[in-house]
This record gives sequence, structure tokens and C-alpha cells, in this order.
Amino acid sequence: MNAFLRNAWYVAAWSHELQAGKLLARKILGEPLVLWRTAGGAIAALEDRCVHRHAPLSRGRLEGDALRCGYHGLKFAPDGRCIEVPGMDSPPPAACVRRFAVVEHRRWVMVWMGDDVARADTGLLPDNFSCESPEWAYVPGYVHYETPVELIADNLLDFSHLSYVHAATFGGGADDTLARVQPRVERLTRGVRVRRDIPRVPPPAYYRPLWAYDDPVDRWLHYEFLLPGTLLMHSGAQPAGMAAEDAERQGTGVRFHSCQTLTPETATSTHYFFMEAHRADRGDANVTEALFQGLLTAFEEDRAMIAAQWRNLQRAPDRRMLPLHMDAALTHYRQLYAAALRAETPT
Amino acid sequence: MNAFLRNAWYVAAWSHELQAGKLLARKILGEPLVLWRTAGGAIAALEDRCVHRHAPLSRGRLEGDALRCGYHGLKFAPDGRCIEVPGMDSPPPAACVRRFAVVEHRRWVMVWMGDDVARADTGLLPDNFSCESPEWAYVPGYVHYETPVELIADNLLDFSHLSYVHAATFGGGADDTLARVQPRVERLTRGVRVRRDIPRVPPPAYYRPLWAYDDPVDRWLHYEFLLPGTLLMHSGAQPAGMAAEDAERQGTGVRFHSCQTLTPETATSTHYFFMEAHRADRGDANVTEALFQGLLTAFEEDRAMIAAQWRNLQRAPDRRMLPLHMDAALTHYRQLYAAALRAETPT
Amino acid sequence: MNAFLRNAWYVAAWSHELQAGKLLARKILGEPLVLWRTAGGAIAALEDRCVHRHAPLSRGRLEGDALRCGYHGLKFAPDGRCIEVPGMDSPPPAACVRRFAVVEHRRWVMVWMGDDVARADTGLLPDNFSCESPEWAYVPGYVHYETPVELIADNLLDFSHLSYVHAATFGGGADDTLARVQPRVERLTRGVRVRRDIPRVPPPAYYRPLWAYDDPVDRWLHYEFLLPGTLLMHSGAQPAGMAAEDAERQGTGVRFHSCQTLTPETATSTHYFFMEAHRADRGDANVTEALFQGLLTAFEEDRAMIAAQWRNLQRAPDRRMLPLHMDAALTHYRQLYAAALRAETPT
Repeated sequence: MNAFLRNAWYVAAWSHELQAGKLLARKILGEPLVLWRTAGGAIAALEDRCVHRHAPLSRGRLEGDALRCGYHGLKFAPDGRCIEVPGMDSPPPAACVRRFAVVEHRRWVMVWMGDDVARADTGLLPDNFSCESPEWAYVPGYVHYETPVELIADNLLDFSHLSYVHAATFGGGADDTLARVQPRVERLTRGVRVRRDIPRVPPPAYYRPLWAYDDPVDRWLHYEFLLPGTLLMHSGAQPAGMAAEDAERQGTGVRFHSCQTLTPETATSTHYFFMEAHRADRGDANVTEALFQGLLTAFEEDRAMIAAQWRNLQRAPDRRMLPLHMDAALTHYRQLYAAALRAETPT
Repeated sequence: MNAFLRNAWYVAAWSHELQAGKLLARKILGEPLVLWRTAGGAIAALEDRCVHRHAPLSRGRLEGDALRCGYHGLKFAPDGRCIEVPGMDSPPPAACVRRFAVVEHRRWVMVWMGDDVARADTGLLPDNFSCESPEWAYVPGYVHYETPVELIADNLLDFSHLSYVHAATFGGGADDTLARVQPRVERLTRGVRVRRDIPRVPPPAYYRPLWAYDDPVDRWLHYEFLLPGTLLMHSGAQPAGMAAEDAERQGTGVRFHSCQTLTPETATSTHYFFMEAHRADRGDANVTEALFQGLLTAFEEDRAMIAAQWRNLQRAPDRRMLPLHMDAALTHYRQLYAAALRAETPT
Repeated sequence: MNAFLRNAWYVAAWSHELQAGKLLARKILGEPLVLWRTAGGAIAALEDRCVHRHAPLSRGRLEGDALRCGYHGLKFAPDGRCIEVPGMDSPPPAACVRRFAVVEHRRWVMVWMGDDVARADTGLLPDNFSCESPEWAYVPGYVHYETPVELIADNLLDFSHLSYVHAATFGGGADDTLARVQPRVERLTRGVRVRRDIPRVPPPAYYRPLWAYDDPVDRWLHYEFLLPGTLLMHSGAQPAGMAAEDAERQGTGVRFHSCQTLTPETATSTHYFFMEAHRADRGDANVTEALFQGLLTAFEEDRAMIAAQWRNLQRAPDRRMLPLHMDAALTHYRQLYAAALRAETPT
């Protein structure tokens, strides 16, 4: 297992994945978890492994708020305590399943993966405000990657790839100005801020459900990428040369807010939860859905490239990469991640 | 390769799988075997590997009782001696394929996997009498498991799982009395005897082809589980409260005899040969088939659970299980197996 | 990675696989290559790995003769030099991709896999003359093997298997005279020559599109097998007992020339490029196609046997094979290969 930050919140699911009476199995940082929603609406998250003979609890059944193992019938409370062993008067005290701290934070079900539940710090939750706001509209997305999380983080930290991987979606077709513009990169305590302003370029095909014009636009992509792997981004465009305040006043151009997050499943596979919201007062449900389909198309472009890159890396893991100016943000983030990892590793 | 008992009989096939003129390839304890029936009706079992360039002999063809390799034409007698090399006057004496002792024992084709054929002891054959008896009717079954044999043996040694894994088939629906009843466990020289009597419970759905009533029954499951992995079981039920002799005299209730055996294919996969016979004078061929379908359904429930358990065990092989009262028989059997293994391992 | 000869030419593709404007990805000796045809008709072959972040260049696009990486847009000349990094004034000198010497030799695109391009010696190209000759007609063939190259070379170095693996295609049905005849084996500096003359045998079913008669033929198979893995073969048959000059003068019988070559893809998988040509003045395009289909059928017979053999070898890699008289050519070739490998390995 590669080393991952453990004292951190990871998205385990979208809120709607946890439905009354249903068990959800999900592997995070190599560990199997089972999650469910109790009658009171809270979420329980236990290790998905019965203490008895290690059967997955997710193959069991809910009895009220408690979970009964489907193999030999041990019954567990939402906090992991065994409350019944069939045929025994009382369960042995050791019959306890590990529980995880879990919060539901603006439609993201977030799990603290550190051993010490008491250290779970809600001050570290990301500001994914647009996931739960009447001002923004989106469809929640999920993609499963059979690649390590680092490669996907690298991808998100260098948007020059939009011109090439996404020429037909997020990019500008043959116009690769976006890749040639230098972004401003700013180091943050727990991440990196990247601002890319691209003057006078063709609007990307991805905008089309919201923006049917071909005239050049001034475009921007402003985001933060934060430990342990969350991207929060404002982006948009307006007619080339127009002042931002004028565009805002006239309600012209397009504006998005995007929340994306990477949760390592194993050392070599990753959960990718994402959304990109448009202003709710611009475009109806058809627009929301069409933008989502465009997003999925583009994310498949990423996935194909990253999977191909991963195959090359596995073939020759010791070959060095060649750092270039465009790698500034990803290099900083990798250093930050390594430092955070050292800080939580006992010496 | 895990260590398996080698000086033991393993079921390689059901008798009907060995048809005149056909070769059967089967891997046992990690070794490839080829089996066929000679004109005299005897069974030959050789290593499925030509001595020349290691092609599988099962891709060759029978010429009378002899087997010709399909790659370069070496020809072998049923005892493994090479009797012809194309283009040579006589085969080199070293051109000999390993043969295995094999007996056909009440429709089970059994192979002795020990190196020393002379040690093959027919006194160790299991008493699978109902496999070949006019008093019993069944359809022979086979399931292939992609899990180690131990986990399937564990399953068979603790029937408390019938209430949970098999609630809809062998168990009693929501009634889990079967799991709560304490079985009597008796240590045998080469196995363990388990007797579980369950008074006044709903008849399991599995009985339905033979027993259409919903009234409570007294139920029993009495079996032996013997080295290297065979279960022999009497089971049945009769109207709750009725004396056994009365039920027998009136011909009421249901009675089964079951022969099941586990043959390791590799360290992580297993052949499972099984049958459960009902009294031949109760129920016609439709009943026999319907019971068999019920058995298959229930055995798929086991397979899904054990496969899921195996995935969890692979993820964390060093995590300890928590022994509970219900593990008495399996714990004894595991100890017995380990001791038998030590006894046959040269020190 | 097994050790393979590197200072040697390997077929990377048939000529027709390299079409204007298209990129071809092919892995050879474990290394990913990307090949394309330039406007001038020459062929470029680079390592299929961008120096920047190791994305496969074959996912990029051609811009004239240059190749632009599809991930972050680095642009490479056919000789591997980076000629543009988006957003930089000039690329760093280290941004260079490895190029391979490549020649197009009678419809075989051949790549020199040695590190030193200057050592690429066209004197070592094989004499696959019939691949590009108006006198011979064929359909080019390709099969992918999931087995190491050695096992396929072994197969080609001992044609006794034609009587058994190919009884229904290249062999003679129940007549296995071909296997019983002793071939003449001659050692060459860079290979081995094998001549097998088989008098008075039934014509193989494979001949049928060209030769509809059942009368016995005198048959011959004369070939060289040359480092690093190329078979060049004259073969044919004529009415039994007829003098060769008479058959030639009367234009009776059948004659083939075959060029086949094995290119290791990885240590355990192989590219197999092959053709078997008949005289162009005998038989039309339908005959050519029918012979090709027969060849494919027979090659599938080989592949099934070799794959089965490979599974047996993986199970017990340390078990010894038993050398027999029929292994003379393959034993010599294996020794030759080992010596060539030692010669190019620095001590």
C-alpha cells in the first residue's frame, strides 16, 4: 500500500447514495467500509468486516438501526459494538467492529480515516458550498479510476492539458492559447491556488448548452486544490474585451462553480466524485443535464489518457519525468503532500 | 502452494464424467491430471504433462487404451510407460509419466495423491453409500469455487449459517432457532461428528418439493466431516412432537442422506462434488430434480458469501478472527488437519 | 524481463499497417514504440513515451511530419528532438525521445532494437524475397501470442508436430509418416537449416485449394530458421515417384515459399508475422485467400497447443524436459541464441 494521508476527510459517497434501509459498501485507502443511514438520519460507517470470521457486513441486513452479519448472525450497533451473538447470552466485549467518524457535509458524505476518531476535525472540511445552494444547479458525478490518485491530481493541477486532451470539449479546438497562457500559482498552507486567465479565445464546445455564440470570449479558470485531494473552482467566460462588472450587470457570459474530489480506493485505484454547477437562474434542467453529459465526455478523455500514462509508468517505474514550467502547481502540491505525510507518520 | 494432505483419497470426478473414448483433464492439489476409462472399464489417471516438452496429454487422443500426445506423438500405456516415440526404434526408459492410484467407489472416482502408489489404502475410502443405492435418489452436483478449501470446510462445519445465509432455502425465513440451538460436537479420530436437533421450527423452503405443509416440524442435521474433506449427513424432519418411531412407521416427514466432498484444485480454488438424496420411494424424478435445483440455489448463496469473505481475507491476511462457541467443530477439524499434515511431512 | 537479443532487426509491422497520417503503437521487447510514415514515405520510430510525464505519444496527433503529444502538447520531430513546448520560447535540450533505426524491407517494417543506432547493420536483414515479388502471391498474416517467444520457435524448429497438431490441415490425417521421417539438420552461423523429405504420403488437406487430387505425393519442407527468429521456407509436393525436373517442366505439383517471423512483445507475449506464398501463375485471388484461411486454421491449432503447454510450464517451471532425437534443431538454435546473447552482454 502506498502511504496516504489518514488524518483527513475523504468523500465516501454522495448523500443520495445513502438510502433508508440500504447498505453501501465502499473501499477507501484500501479499507472496506459499510455505510448506512439510521432512522434519525445520521450516517453510520463501520469497517466492512465482521470480527468473527471476516465476512463483509455489507452482505448482512439492517434490523432497525443495527446491522446483522449475513454469515453467522452477529448483530452490531451503529457505533460498532456487538449487541448479539446468536446462541450466546451476551457477546464477548472484544466483539467490536471499527467505526469511522462520518459527517454529511453539503451532500458529501465524508469519512475521517485516521485511527483516532476524536481527532476528526470538522474545521478541515472543504468549502463545497455550491453542492448545496439554491443558486447553483448540477448533476452529481462519479467516475472510477483504475489508476493511482497522484496521476489524477497531477492532471487537475495542470490545465494546459485542456488544449490537447480536451480540444473538442473543454479546450478550443485547434486554438491552444489556453495551454500557452501562464497561470498564476500561489502556495497555500494546505494546497495551491491556480488562476488562469485566457483572453480572446473561441468558446469551448462544452459551453454550448449555455452559450450558443462563436465570437471570442475572455475566459478564466480560478481554483484551489486542497489536501487530501479536493478541487474547488470558479470558472467562466464573457464576450472578449467586456469589463467583468458589465458582464455581471448584463447577465451575459457563463459562470460555473465546480467541486471535485479524489478518494483513493486502493494504491492503484481511485474514486472521483465531481460536479460542475451553473447558475441556477440561467438554463433549465435540460441545460443542466446537457452540461453534465459534456462533463462526462471530457472526463472520459482524461481517464483514457491517464490510464495510458499509467500503463507506461508501470512498465518503467524508475524512469525520470522531465519537469517543465507547466508543472509548478503539481510539483508544489506533491511536496506539500509529502510533508503532510511525514508530519503524521510516527518517527 | 499451501500444504495439503497428500496421502489421502480425493474425488476427481463423478463416474459418469468418464466416458469411453474421452479424456478428462482435472487439476488436483495443483497438479494436472488426465483420466480416462479403458476398454475393460478400469480408470487410468496420469499426470497431464508429456515428459517430452510438457504439453498436456489431455490434448492428445486415445488409441485403444493408450494415450498419444497431441504435440509430438509420444504414446503412453495406462500405467504411464511410454510405448512409442515416432521415429525411434524404442522409447528411452526415462520416458515415463507419473501415474496415480485410482478407484471408482460408489460413483466417486477417487485418486490417491500421495507419491507412493503402494500406500494407497482403500480402508480410508468414505462411506458414501447413498451415492449407489436403490433406496436413495439424487442428481449429482458440482460447483467450482475460486476460494481456498479451508473456507468451504469452515462453512460446512458450522450450520448456524443456515439461518442467515440460507434464510430463504435451508433456513427458516425470519426464524433463526436453528442458529441458536447448540449442536453436539464429538471428536473422531479422522474427523468430527456434529448433531443438531431443532425442535418445533417452520419447515425450510427447500423441503417444499417433498413436504408441502407449513406446520412446525422437529428437524435434525446429523453429520460427520472427515479428512481430507468429506461430509456425510443424515437429515430430516417430522411433525413437531411426534415420536421418531411413529413418524418412521407412518412414513411421514422427510429424510435425506447427503454426500459432499471438497477437492482442492489449487491453493486458492476448489472442486466441490455433492449430492443430497431423498428416499427413492418418496417422490418421483420431478421431485428429485426440484430438490436438486433448490440445492444449487442454496449452494450459490454459500459461494457468494465465501467469495466475499475470501476477498476480505486477502486484503488483510494477518488480521485475527474471533473464535466463538459456534466454531467448536471447525476449530477441532482445523487442528486435526494440521496434525495429520505434520504426521505426513518428513522432518 | 527475459533477456532478448537487442542488436538485431525485428519486424514491427507489415508495410500496409503504416498509413499516411496514422500513428501505430507497438510494443517490442517490452518497450513501447510509436511508428508513422512521413510525407516523404520514410518511417519514423520513437519510444512511445513523452519525456515530460510519460504519456504515450501514440495518443497524440501528427502535424506534418512531426508528432504532438496529446497530453500537454510537446512536439517532436521524426528523429525524436523536441521542437516545441507550449508556453516556452524553446524546448530544453534534454527533451528528447529515443528514436529507433527502422527500414522498410520487402513489406516488412524492421526496427533495430539495440541502443546504438549506428550499429544497425542492414547486412543482417533476412532474405524474405517472396514478400515482394511478382512471382509469388499471398495474404499477409498476423497472430498475437500470449506465450514467450521460445515456445513458438521450438514449435517451428520441429515439424514432427505437423502429424499430430495439424493432422487435419498440414499433416496427413491418420498417416504420420511426416513425423517418422528423419530431417537433415545443418548448423548455420546465425541459425539452422532443416530439410525434411517425405516420400509417398497423402497430400495434406491444406493443399486442397491448389491441388484437388488424393494420390500420394512426394513432399518436402526445406527451411532456415535464423536469429533472432525468422523462418524462410521452400516447400511443396509432386506426384509420388516423379523426378523433380519433370514436375517442374510439366508445371505439376505445388510449390510454396513462406516467410515467418517472431517478434517478442514482452517476456511472455509475442507478435507473429507470417505469410505463405504460392506461385502467382498458379491459382487466382480466391485460391490465395483459401490458402490463407487454411493457414490461419492451422496456426490456431499451434496457438492452442502452445498456450496449453505454457500453462503447464508456468505451473512447474523447474521440471526438466526430456530431449529426444526430434529436438536436434531446436536444441542447436537455443544454444546459438544463448551464445549470441552472451556475446552482446557486457561482462
